[in-house]
Amino acid sequence: MTVSPFSAQEIERRQARVRDHLDDGQAFIAFSFTGSYYLSGAPIVHWGRPTITVVPKSDTAFMVTSAMEKPRIKSLSHVNDLLLYQDSNGPSLSAALDCLASGLSDRGIKDVVVDGGMTPFATIELFRKHCRNIPVHDGTSHLNQLRLILSDEEIAYARAAVAISDIGVESFLDKARIGDAESTLAARSSQAMADFAADQYPDIEMHLRCYSQQGLRTLEPHSGTGGQPLTEGHLLQIVIEASAWHYLSAVERTIALGELPARHDAYFNTLVEAHEAAIAEVAPGAPCSAPHNAASAIFVRDGFGESPVGTGLQRGVVSEWEGRIPEGDLRSYNDEPLKSGMVVTVEPFTYVEGVGATRHCDMVLVTENGSERLSKSPVGRLAISS
Amino acid sequence: MTVSPFSAQEIERRQARVRDHLDDGQAFIAFSFTGSYYLSGAPIVHWGRPTITVVPKSDTAFMVTSAMEKPRIKSLSHVNDLLLYQDSNGPSLSAALDCLASGLSDRGIKDVVVDGGMTPFATIELFRKHCRNIPVHDGTSHLNQLRLILSDEEIAYARAAVAISDIGVESFLDKARIGDAESTLAARSSQAMADFAADQYPDIEMHLRCYSQQGLRTLEPHSGTGGQPLTEGHLLQIVIEASAWHYLSAVERTIALGELPARHDAYFNTLVEAHEAAIAEVAPGAPCSAPHNAASAIFVRDGFGESPVGTGLQRGVVSEWEGRIPEGDLRSYNDEPLKSGMVVTVEPFTYVEGVGATRHCDMVLVTENGSERLSKSPVGRLAISS
Repeated sequence: MTVSPFSAQEIERRQARVRDHLDDGQAFIAFSFTGSYYLSGAPIVHWGRPTITVVPKSDTAFMVTSAMEKPRIKSLSHVNDLLLYQDSNGPSLSAALDCLASGLSDRGIKDVVVDGGMTPFATIELFRKHCRNIPVHDGTSHLNQLRLILSDEEIAYARAAVAISDIGVESFLDKARIGDAESTLAARSSQAMADFAADQYPDIEMHLRCYSQQGLRTLEPHSGTGGQPLTEGHLLQIVIEASAWHYLSAVERTIALGELPARHDAYFNTLVEAHEAAIAEVAPGAPCSAPHNAASAIFVRDGFGESPVGTGLQRGVVSEWEGRIPEGDLRSYNDEPLKSGMVVTVEPFTYVEGVGATRHCDMVLVTENGSERLSKSPVGRLAISS
Repeated sequence: MTVSPFSAQEIERRQARVRDHLDDGQAFIAFSFTGSYYLSGAPIVHWGRPTITVVPKSDTAFMVTSAMEKPRIKSLSHVNDLLLYQDSNGPSLSAALDCLASGLSDRGIKDVVVDGGMTPFATIELFRKHCRNIPVHDGTSHLNQLRLILSDEEIAYARAAVAISDIGVESFLDKARIGDAESTLAARSSQAMADFAADQYPDIEMHLRCYSQQGLRTLEPHSGTGGQPLTEGHLLQIVIEASAWHYLSAVERTIALGELPARHDAYFNTLVEAHEAAIAEVAPGAPCSAPHNAASAIFVRDGFGESPVGTGLQRGVVSEWEGRIPEGDLRSYNDEPLKSGMVVTVEPFTYVEGVGATRHCDMVLVTENGSERLSKSPVGRLAISS
């Protein structure tokens, strides 16, 4: 019924890369949504019922999951060995750890590596009670190194998500007028995206989100959308996100609402230049800090000061809740090299008192020889006239 | 600019309840979104930048957060003492733990209790490196006991969220026709909800989500919506969620698409009766298992077998990612008493081969004397004619 998001070869490749770092008798246990999805191909959000994927060094992978998720895992995953618990077995975490303990014991696993950056402390404490003699090591950093480089199959989902975001931006720019409520415009963009996604990508599970802020509210970039009408003289920030099988895109744009005061106008010019300068620095081998430093120099030159915020982050399977990879942050201290196959957002901005903290944000793929901007949305000085 | 979601008295009450369980020299550290929001009043989703709320036994509460979130916390929270880190200070978790360590040291904190059920293992391990001599205890269960009972201010958000979900259900029932794409209908309901929310609750931050499945796809209740057209002879499941300042509602309905085969028809009758029977069991003092057992008896009587899934869960600040309270699960083994101020979903269902796993789901408030169904959406045998 549902098509698996990934080929069997892709999942085998990921599991093999994890096994490369295991010793005999060891297993990698992915407790988190992100880790379990990466190693099984099945995106099972927990909702309080753990789904755990285990990759032993010398045995086939197996999963522990709720019986409720069995049909979904059967259709999406390439892991065939499922250990199931039911809601009636008791609290889900304990029930899952019972299954896990017997799965490890049956395979003679004596030592485990876990995705500790995304697994609750209490889960590991309880695991230690269920499996008293099994040492636990944190393997988050190795997992993150693998996840940083997207395969062609993964890049295809990043492209799909961006294409859908582009539709949302187009809809917003096309329909928004001064006086319209932000929340109504966000809902309209969502609908345009949903229609496009249903038509173009009927087999991909999508999540869509559009929100916006204007004026000084942009100083709270993580606040939600309310019913405020678009107001002349403000900078508007729109954030158009789509996630395709949990591969998250963001296309974000700053838009002038009618005539701007001089200081707003100046910041907008600087912002556009900083954004292009940052994107120009994305190339394999360049440090992750390069896009940030290029943009920050322009903010400083134009009197807006050094930017206190990072310029973007690694994309892939990530949400506001889980999956962010600090090793891929585009920040001043991060001199790790960009690598072909990474997809990062490039979104330099700074805080300007009395004006706001708006930004253009694009998804950029690091290629063999340079980079590719995935979004086709208009950039530059966008405006909605009054 | 933004109104704080909660009164100062409400936040003080919560902090006092936490302090009741602390010893001298101890502090409760809420690392998670859910815990930090509960104790500060500021709903700061991390996006990789920790926001941490600390409640010492004998000192005022303080928060560790990214400078980026300062304006938002200033407008939403009642905690005035903020320790700030910047993106330029290094990886956010380390930078946050540096601030936290100095905050604890300045106040002479020698022992901490944490929300370990929602805090990554790696975070606690790193905390132990930053604060070598401070023992860490897990206080999740005490925090959950507090969170189980919603205050009047919290119940108001649950009511707002349900009122918005009801608009989504009404829109769906009004507009859906056989042949319409599921994703298009979901987007239309979202738009109706957004318009209503902007009009009725302009000061509440909302997140909306509508999705649906039909036929055998309902056996995968956590799958997303695709572009499938509504098809005659299926049972359709709609899930209409709204979260008001992260207080999550769900109103879910089973809908007959045209004429149903006999087995589908029989399940629908049983389902409607089981749902009403389960709601009738919600009352203060009744065990959390009572609604489940009442529904399950009807499934058994009608030949559909004992339901292997729970019948609902505690609502409040919860999402598919975080915040679920196992102590409030409506399951066969859970004999904890329901208490006035709890809000649970009541959503009995079972898996029927060849038919699906659809359900009606309502939000129910436990009152002093009984219960109140918060949703006003139609129930019973809903249908879309061909």
